Amino acid sequence: MENLTVKTKKPYTIYFRHSFDDIPNAFKQLDLLNRKIIIITDNNVAPIYLNMLKNALNTDISFSFPAGEPQKHLNTIANMYSCFLEHKLDRRSVVVALGGGVVGDMAGFAAATFMRGIPYVQVPTSLLAQVDSSVGGKTAVDFGGVKNLVGAFCQPKLVYVNLSTLNTLSQNEFISGMGEAVKHAIIGDKAYNDFLSDSANIKQIKTLQPAALLQLIKGSCQIKAAVVASDETEQGLRETLNFGHCVGHAIESLSNYTLLHGCCVAIGMCAALSISHKKGNITAADFDNAVKLIKSYDLPTTITGYNAAEILAHMYKDKKTLNDTLRIVLLQKIGTAYTDNSVPEPDIITAIGAILE
Amino acid sequence: MENLTVKTKKPYTIYFRHSFDDIPNAFKQLDLLNRKIIIITDNNVAPIYLNMLKNALNTDISFSFPAGEPQKHLNTIANMYSCFLEHKLDRRSVVVALGGGVVGDMAGFAAATFMRGIPYVQVPTSLLAQVDSSVGGKTAVDFGGVKNLVGAFCQPKLVYVNLSTLNTLSQNEFISGMGEAVKHAIIGDKAYNDFLSDSANIKQIKTLQPAALLQLIKGSCQIKAAVVASDETEQGLRETLNFGHCVGHAIESLSNYTLLHGCCVAIGMCAALSISHKKGNITAADFDNAVKLIKSYDLPTTITGYNAAEILAHMYKDKKTLNDTLRIVLLQKIGTAYTDNSVPEPDIITAIGAILE
Repeated sequence: MENLTVKTKKPYTIYFRHSFDDIPNAFKQLDLLNRKIIIITDNNVAPIYLNMLKNALNTDISFSFPAGEPQKHLNTIANMYSCFLEHKLDRRSVVVALGGGVVGDMAGFAAATFMRGIPYVQVPTSLLAQVDSSVGGKTAVDFGGVKNLVGAFCQPKLVYVNLSTLNTLSQNEFISGMGEAVKHAIIGDKAYNDFLSDSANIKQIKTLQPAALLQLIKGSCQIKAAVVASDETEQGLRETLNFGHCVGHAIESLSNYTLLHGCCVAIGMCAALSISHKKGNITAADFDNAVKLIKSYDLPTTITGYNAAEILAHMYKDKKTLNDTLRIVLLQKIGTAYTDNSVPEPDIITAIGAILE
Repeated sequence: MENLTVKTKKPYTIYFRHSFDDIPNAFKQLDLLNRKIIIITDNNVAPIYLNMLKNALNTDISFSFPAGEPQKHLNTIANMYSCFLEHKLDRRSVVVALGGGVVGDMAGFAAATFMRGIPYVQVPTSLLAQVDSSVGGKTAVDFGGVKNLVGAFCQPKLVYVNLSTLNTLSQNEFISGMGEAVKHAIIGDKAYNDFLSDSANIKQIKTLQPAALLQLIKGSCQIKAAVVASDETEQGLRETLNFGHCVGHAIESLSNYTLLHGCCVAIGMCAALSISHKKGNITAADFDNAVKLIKSYDLPTTITGYNAAEILAHMYKDKKTLNDTLRIVLLQKIGTAYTDNSVPEPDIITAIGAILE
């Protein structure tokens, strides 16, 4: 029985389990059980887990939409509102997000804004959602070609991680999730970095051994939860979680979301690592070890088909850009990231050049 | 120089002035001046005040939409986001709502959700917005025929009331605003009730005497600010501000928003007063005085063209309804309201009957 508390203004618990058996109990603890419950999911996840969760939560109400980032827009949110109305949801009703990051971000945003906020619960089924996006209360949709442009900070009532759902995840999606876990290792504590770097652990994780997965996911959540608790609405420190995302988001958007998020973050981290090295913040050995860690989980470190100018242009469109100044998260040292808004553009272009094949 | 602080988690100031002259200073106090500033307004207000405010705030960026409740939907919000993107707004940019309640609710919602929240400022130009909707951080749009179904709690950085804008307000809009002011008098403190009930004051207010208007608006804001500060996200006490709104929203929606909000609230208050009297909470004299106060500002107390059944049916569609139970705000006594979820349906129907002509 492994739990973790996220100490935000309204604290909540992350449950790590190997089945859905304990979810009724988790709901009951918060008096969420005997209410109208709607499960939001997508057409990848629904055939595998929807009925299982409906039975566990004793509800018949659900909303499913086509899987994938292209659905992450306001029209899908409007369809959710219509469904909420049709089922007469009220302020005590509970929205459950069953799926990966897209489902979690959108169900969270719909819940955060319906009646100015009704309770919601994250049930992440992808590795990326389990190690990262289900924790911290960032909800959003894409708008006008900009990822997560519209959204809200709104913490879930609880997060329930069923590790066994990783058995049905595609290998590519698993690799993508590792991108965020490796990010936490590089910007987070040394113990987690050592754990992920150990060759025996790498093998255990890649073969989905439950004990290793638990340590992988809980370790990531611990690092993220600590940052989120100290800066819930991203006034400063939380920005460091965007390590690898400055270049990463640009690549992801340029690829029309055909490249998975965590893979783009991995490539973006390589660019950020090389700027950090050039500035003298990290040694060549630090740089090599970090790139080795990224590669050890089969994550990409380079990209083909784009040039530096178009990647740079997309970086200026990102919502992290302030007053037309690029803000790039770099390493002060391994384990410590910071936001740098004064990296000369030529240095950025050089770093992008290094990730182009 | 009259100011009032709203003591929410992030406190903010309401400025009461007789021109826009002091608004640059108000912005400067909060370091909001040398940023990108976008003014959102509607086509009623724009011809009169937009250029004046653009000059005062030294900005060229604005977004205007057709006036009226029928525009209060997600598509208008999406148009605002597009405009924000076009002008490359970032997280430090400031959204200014120049107008009545519809402008304020929508500009606030767009600001609350763009990049998960950028700063916004309320510059209310209608009496209704000045005495009520610009204070307290409720932002929203209508959806699926339900008023304010989608929204967020998000406090403005400041509220700047230019009392002189009431000189260009239509008489009907002025009367509507008095509906919310009278509500505050009935559920709020006795001094404010006495002030509004005084025949000399009534005359001063109706003839827009600046000193009387200041006392009217500041008094309302004080009552509202105290309630909001103690219950920012409407977990309890804040619900009492919905006095008159349970029946009022139903009438407003049934009329397709041809009846103005404050007038519907006035009629709704008459229904709530009669239930409060029937329950023995207020005396016949209390009831008569309250209705007299409503009438003294030319507010309606009855309605024609609808029957009790259809009004009741619309009340069940309101977002205040929990688990199909009507929650009606009543008076415990004059000056003290509470939410009652056990008023027998026949009593509600009787009360509705009393407001039908």
